[in-house]
Amino acid sequence: MLIIGEKLNSAIPGVRQIMEAKDAAAVQDLAVRQAAAGVHYLDVNTAHCGDETAYMEWLVRTVQEVTDTPLCIDSTDGSVIRKALEVAKGNKNKILINSISMEKNRLDQVLPLVLEYQCPVIGLTVDDNGIPKTVEDRISIAGRMVDLLAKEGYNLDNLYIDPLVLPLAVSHGNALIFFECLSEIKRQFKVKTVSGLSNISFNMPKRKIINRYFLAICMAHGMDAAILDPLDKKIMTAVTAVELLMGKDPFGKNFLKAYRKDMLED
Amino acid sequence: MLIIGEKLNSAIPGVRQIMEAKDAAAVQDLAVRQAAAGVHYLDVNTAHCGDETAYMEWLVRTVQEVTDTPLCIDSTDGSVIRKALEVAKGNKNKILINSISMEKNRLDQVLPLVLEYQCPVIGLTVDDNGIPKTVEDRISIAGRMVDLLAKEGYNLDNLYIDPLVLPLAVSHGNALIFFECLSEIKRQFKVKTVSGLSNISFNMPKRKIINRYFLAICMAHGMDAAILDPLDKKIMTAVTAVELLMGKDPFGKNFLKAYRKDMLED
Repeated sequence: MLIIGEKLNSAIPGVRQIMEAKDAAAVQDLAVRQAAAGVHYLDVNTAHCGDETAYMEWLVRTVQEVTDTPLCIDSTDGSVIRKALEVAKGNKNKILINSISMEKNRLDQVLPLVLEYQCPVIGLTVDDNGIPKTVEDRISIAGRMVDLLAKEGYNLDNLYIDPLVLPLAVSHGNALIFFECLSEIKRQFKVKTVSGLSNISFNMPKRKIINRYFLAICMAHGMDAAILDPLDKKIMTAVTAVELLMGKDPFGKNFLKAYRKDMLED
Repeated sequence: MLIIGEKLNSAIPGVRQIMEAKDAAAVQDLAVRQAAAGVHYLDVNTAHCGDETAYMEWLVRTVQEVTDTPLCIDSTDGSVIRKALEVAKGNKNKILINSISMEKNRLDQVLPLVLEYQCPVIGLTVDDNGIPKTVEDRISIAGRMVDLLAKEGYNLDNLYIDPLVLPLAVSHGNALIFFECLSEIKRQFKVKTVSGLSNISFNMPKRKIINRYFLAICMAHGMDAAILDPLDKKIMTAVTAVELLMGKDPFGKNFLKAYRKDMLED
């Protein structure tokens, strides 16, 4: 499973502080520790800082001084993503763009960049009518996105659809709807899927417990990637254990390696 | 989900000791604590004690002095099960029999008791050729069992099929085979499914971690019952969290109740 480290996100108050203070050492520490934890991408988001574009430029340069781990550029603003792509070192087509959707404004701004740089991209199942309540309507948006990208000659292996989980506190069927979306998207379009973990437990106690079992069941439904905190030993233990259970860890090699390195936390 | 408390099993060395010592207080303590933890059945097994039948009779009487929680009579020996059924108080048709299989000797001995008392029963997908390696062959045994019970007029709502998990340490596809069996048995025969949790992690370190995520994924595949240690707070937390995620806990009522009672362990 592909792991996208979520720590360098300005939505986290403490992280926003170190970004606004341009505390390079603190930002680099978060980057290096996430990379060491084995993430495949480092999410970078400056949407909650003053000048999103300027902070993004600084953040991309600062992170890339200390790690080659590919970046996941997290913004709703095309100009911010463009700036990040311009200043990033290395192969631009290794950068994951987070995200497009079927909202017209977002498509107009971000899709051209995805196509120009042929980047992998996260596609949200939302359009100008909002996030649909039903599985069918989310699948329908996913289908329109797949068709559009295929028509543009985009390599669909690089598309990660996020069917957008809504909180259980809003409706007790919301996780089930999400699991069905994961299965259906895979079955109908053969594209990859991705999710964040924290929305599911919004407004509930013991959120990390809910998030971990949510991740496990998503992985059992074939989810390909997750945006998570790789410094949380218990969530990383869940990833390792579920990959073992899903037959993706021959001879339990990774599980046993994690055990020997004392990385499994009960 | 139906929970069968596994603690009163003579295969556990310390439990065998208290059984062989006829330590009624210790046995009753295990019974009462499991009942208080919310189990639906108490498994009782004396197969590792000297005289299995005599110990079973004592165990059934001793446990039923302190709790009305239905028993799950766990033996491969028809005469042991018959004795347990005879001495048990209350409605005999509430007793879960653990287990039948398609092995001729076991069928001949135990099936008549199941039919005579119309008890719920656990049915193992094994026949005289052993536990099949493939999903197809286990489904085939399940199908023969369903047909046989239906022909005998047995209420199939009372049948819990256990597709018998084999250790990941033996083959890294063993959990996946089990998950597929759960889905297929439900899809083809509409009967209930059950499993123990510990075989999956045999010969691996950090077994409880593997067992918990195994349980979570089994529940996501619609498993109806599990034989587990209800005194293990983390495994019970997994049950509560996964029922929430699977849409079986409207308004998160049980999850929040468990939280307020400090029963959720991270």
